Amino acid sequence: MRYEELTIEGRNTVIEAFRSGKTIDKVFLLDGCQDGPIRTILREAKKRDTIVHFVKKERLDQMSETGKHQGVIAYTAAYEYGTIEEMLKNAEEKSESPFLILLDNIEDPHNLGSILRTANQVGAHGVVIPKRHAAGLTATVAKASAGAINYTPVAKVTNLGKTIDELKEKGLWFVCGDMDGESMYELDLTGPIGLVVGNEGSGVSRLVREKCDFAASIPMYGDIDSLNASVAMGVLSYEIVRQKLQKANGAG
Amino acid sequence: MRYEELTIEGRNTVIEAFRSGKTIDKVFLLDGCQDGPIRTILREAKKRDTIVHFVKKERLDQMSETGKHQGVIAYTAAYEYGTIEEMLKNAEEKSESPFLILLDNIEDPHNLGSILRTANQVGAHGVVIPKRHAAGLTATVAKASAGAINYTPVAKVTNLGKTIDELKEKGLWFVCGDMDGESMYELDLTGPIGLVVGNEGSGVSRLVREKCDFAASIPMYGDIDSLNASVAMGVLSYEIVRQKLQKANGAG
Repeated sequence: MRYEELTIEGRNTVIEAFRSGKTIDKVFLLDGCQDGPIRTILREAKKRDTIVHFVKKERLDQMSETGKHQGVIAYTAAYEYGTIEEMLKNAEEKSESPFLILLDNIEDPHNLGSILRTANQVGAHGVVIPKRHAAGLTATVAKASAGAINYTPVAKVTNLGKTIDELKEKGLWFVCGDMDGESMYELDLTGPIGLVVGNEGSGVSRLVREKCDFAASIPMYGDIDSLNASVAMGVLSYEIVRQKLQKANGAG
Repeated sequence: MRYEELTIEGRNTVIEAFRSGKTIDKVFLLDGCQDGPIRTILREAKKRDTIVHFVKKERLDQMSETGKHQGVIAYTAAYEYGTIEEMLKNAEEKSESPFLILLDNIEDPHNLGSILRTANQVGAHGVVIPKRHAAGLTATVAKASAGAINYTPVAKVTNLGKTIDELKEKGLWFVCGDMDGESMYELDLTGPIGLVVGNEGSGVSRLVREKCDFAASIPMYGDIDSLNASVAMGVLSYEIVRQKLQKANGAG
């Protein structure tokens, strides 16, 4: 993956960035601004499902690094995002069953980085995050990933539920981490699989959970509510690894 | 556990803190200071294996919250530490095999907090950390532990190797996480157990590793070196949980 600059400013610069196909995470526009270039930016943003925020001049001045924002500041991905197609192709080339990690509402960059690191180690073919309510691929994520960001692709999708439907048609089945689910030790977690992990507060959102074929719980004996999201993802992922190894050994 | 103030300053305040039995993590003394009260503090620190740093006046001025440090600043435990005896007693009262987590060189407070959280959820009876090169029980650790710090005791010991020897005499056996070890799936991880986890850079130190009965590795298929320490601890701990459950079911 290639490292990119983090903030771009100015009307033409942002329009150019859109047209050159750069991944833009968010656009901040001056509230009330309605001229031609701004309308162009809005159109490009809509085309790519980029999130747009209308903010006051003071906010833009504060965010600006050049002092010449012209009412427009955009955040680009620090690292280039990958695609789901590329993940599935990678699995096919290695003759492996697809193994994807889908994250619902993981907003903490340290958790996202740590999850990328684990995803790399368990041999997952990629990590899928939603456009909204997700940490972007910033320098903090890169650092917490300990280099995994350079190997394990991350795809950003508009609607996690829709992505699950599409991947089901390609033969994947989905398990989500859920405290009310069946014990992960009792489920068969082998085959082409998508593991959905939610955030620590609210878990996987209802709409996404309903799309999943199974809900898997991690046994907990403690006095508190939950595990750290990246630990929970690690424990669930390694149960998948263990079952795959067991199946391979049983067949051998 | 009880929350304590974080920094204490001034000669008499620090001497009083020592004499009242407060846990003092570190003492900072003005370089070159040799008078009576300072010698008393040094004596008390030595008695309790408290780490002492001699620093310049500018450093003390910077650290001081009151502006009246008189050449002495001490850091107390934010939370009270527990004891290994209390952990073993707790296991006995619940009729459970002792299950302790020992941490070697975990200096990152977020990792320590996350490990406490997992230790609580896997039903470990306590976490043991060395006096040196370990994160203290600060507010950051408490927050990252999501409340687990109030339930799972943490004991601080002078020498991890000596503690392992003492616990072996009480029937515990020890496994350390080690990339060159045997696969954790191939080892019997049931019974009274101490799990030793090292930091991400250098793993478990040689002297501690040599005290362990077994070295367990987590299978890794990635392009990078290791897992985040708190994720590795979670994965190893849950393999212990799984094997215990399996044994209990097999016997039932």
